[in-house]
Amino acid sequence: MTNIIIGDTTLRDGSHAVSHSFTPQFVGKIVTELAAANVPLIEVSHGAGLQGSTIQQGFSKYDEMKLIEAAVKVKGQSKIASLFVPGIGTRPAIVEAANIGIDALRIAVHCTEANISQQYFEEAKKQNLGAYGFLMMSHSTTPQRLAEEAKKMEEYGADGVYIVDSAGALVPKTVIERIHALKETLSIQIGFHGHNNLGLAVGNSLTAIEHGATLIDGTLRGLGAGAGNAPLEVLIAAMVKSNIETPIVLSTLMNAAEELVAPEMHYLPFIDRENLSSGYAGVYNSFLLHVRKAAEKFQVNPVSIIEELGKRNAVAGQEDWIIDVAMELSTKKVEV
Amino acid sequence: MTNIIIGDTTLRDGSHAVSHSFTPQFVGKIVTELAAANVPLIEVSHGAGLQGSTIQQGFSKYDEMKLIEAAVKVKGQSKIASLFVPGIGTRPAIVEAANIGIDALRIAVHCTEANISQQYFEEAKKQNLGAYGFLMMSHSTTPQRLAEEAKKMEEYGADGVYIVDSAGALVPKTVIERIHALKETLSIQIGFHGHNNLGLAVGNSLTAIEHGATLIDGTLRGLGAGAGNAPLEVLIAAMVKSNIETPIVLSTLMNAAEELVAPEMHYLPFIDRENLSSGYAGVYNSFLLHVRKAAEKFQVNPVSIIEELGKRNAVAGQEDWIIDVAMELSTKKVEV
Repeated sequence: MTNIIIGDTTLRDGSHAVSHSFTPQFVGKIVTELAAANVPLIEVSHGAGLQGSTIQQGFSKYDEMKLIEAAVKVKGQSKIASLFVPGIGTRPAIVEAANIGIDALRIAVHCTEANISQQYFEEAKKQNLGAYGFLMMSHSTTPQRLAEEAKKMEEYGADGVYIVDSAGALVPKTVIERIHALKETLSIQIGFHGHNNLGLAVGNSLTAIEHGATLIDGTLRGLGAGAGNAPLEVLIAAMVKSNIETPIVLSTLMNAAEELVAPEMHYLPFIDRENLSSGYAGVYNSFLLHVRKAAEKFQVNPVSIIEELGKRNAVAGQEDWIIDVAMELSTKKVEV
Repeated sequence: MTNIIIGDTTLRDGSHAVSHSFTPQFVGKIVTELAAANVPLIEVSHGAGLQGSTIQQGFSKYDEMKLIEAAVKVKGQSKIASLFVPGIGTRPAIVEAANIGIDALRIAVHCTEANISQQYFEEAKKQNLGAYGFLMMSHSTTPQRLAEEAKKMEEYGADGVYIVDSAGALVPKTVIERIHALKETLSIQIGFHGHNNLGLAVGNSLTAIEHGATLIDGTLRGLGAGAGNAPLEVLIAAMVKSNIETPIVLSTLMNAAEELVAPEMHYLPFIDRENLSSGYAGVYNSFLLHVRKAAEKFQVNPVSIIEELGKRNAVAGQEDWIIDVAMELSTKKVEV
């Protein structure tokens, strides 16, 4: 038997890529297929986590608790997780989601800010939820610091910690360094959550598995902000070809990706100039749609905005900087 | 200084993806940008190599010798190569391309058929061309056999041999096995030419470099048949992030991909169900357009055609099998 726990985040990362318009019906259909394919962990929530439906992050079309309810109803043997971002979500949302029947909470913080996650790990444990740490923008700090932050989460009660490549800025070499640093420090499971800005979401995931990560994420058809996530059906095919055992039924995923997800996509998660710049400069993928809008509004080159955000080390939650930067570049009469 | 020789095959692999419609003007523009970006090797010819313009492979809109001429004119410090497939091309075409001014010939055979390349290596040498072997569908034989075939090419005078992943069916593990087998056997350079069906074109290329390959191919925006090639601008960004030295100017590639190639694309090289099946089953990427046409004509599921072609180990040049298989599946009333 495999020891790799695959997480599907189509219904969370994918939320960004469809302007948070998932319906309970769609969630039910996707979870049904993922459960039939034996995907052990399925994440459902607003793209920015519980209570992410705001003017800054984008409003959800449907109450996310209704989406979670739709998922829980058809989850079969799979577990349902929700993302939670301290600063966006608050504890009552954890209690509400737990009451609806989620099995796990994934608590996401910028990779140097683990200390703000403590009370939420405690709340998750109080609610009898599995509790996982999500260290976002993991490329942006050293492997050593990342390991220290992960260790804090372990001390707060985490069952595992994910190295989250929010900007798609990691390469196999830098993934390996991070996994090894965490392995030396932690006694809990290590995860990897990849994005595809450098064309490496699948390659980095295989590297992570090879070096000891046991929690691996993807989304059907790569649905996600910017360049998208590791496409789950592609990742599973690549795992099989690499002789990594998995109980997951590839054909079910392939059909769900093609027949259910493809018709709902607003765009193909392709590595265009802006998405590549974003990975190269290390800028959060979910910024991209906002960058494109700001670039149009202020008539500046989106790549210039991305490069400037990279220089300023903008992190999740600092979406308002996008407008500031666009405005500044516009008054500087930067070449369009 | 880097020892990695990057080859751009936009104007050869990409030919399949635009139904062989490149114009001399377009070729001139792309070669100008690639030369400005310091790309050392630029391949130009019909997608199926010199004289590939046939009813089986698809007719070229413009005489490929005119395209090669347009490339040679603006090549600057870069070298121009053409692909040559024994069985499709004949020796007079090599002489003609050499007279126009190509610098190198890449001689492509199915990975177990190196023996048919000998006379073409001799012709290339006679014409003072660099001569490289291209072992297509390299996933479909053992590393040992692949090394034996590569050795034959070395004996025929090859300056280097490429492991060509025509079906996008290799994963890092199987790339490493092949590179090592060739390294043990050859004293010439080893190359890797990746396709993206398993989402690994960039990842496999980095793996190949790490294990000793020094000739690496890509195409702007991944332009190529099926799931496309390693997108060159993405590959270079990933190399830089991996601390692999390269003299190539990334921004020039990014702009050429976005401003020159994107507007000419007929489709985005995306890993949909058919492209993924193709990589998984190990079927030649350039079959895909033909498979889609046959599936429509005979009202059968394209994935079934792909799976059957995989079972039959169809190789380049056996495009007529596609119709046979589609017809057979259609009379068997296979579920659409």
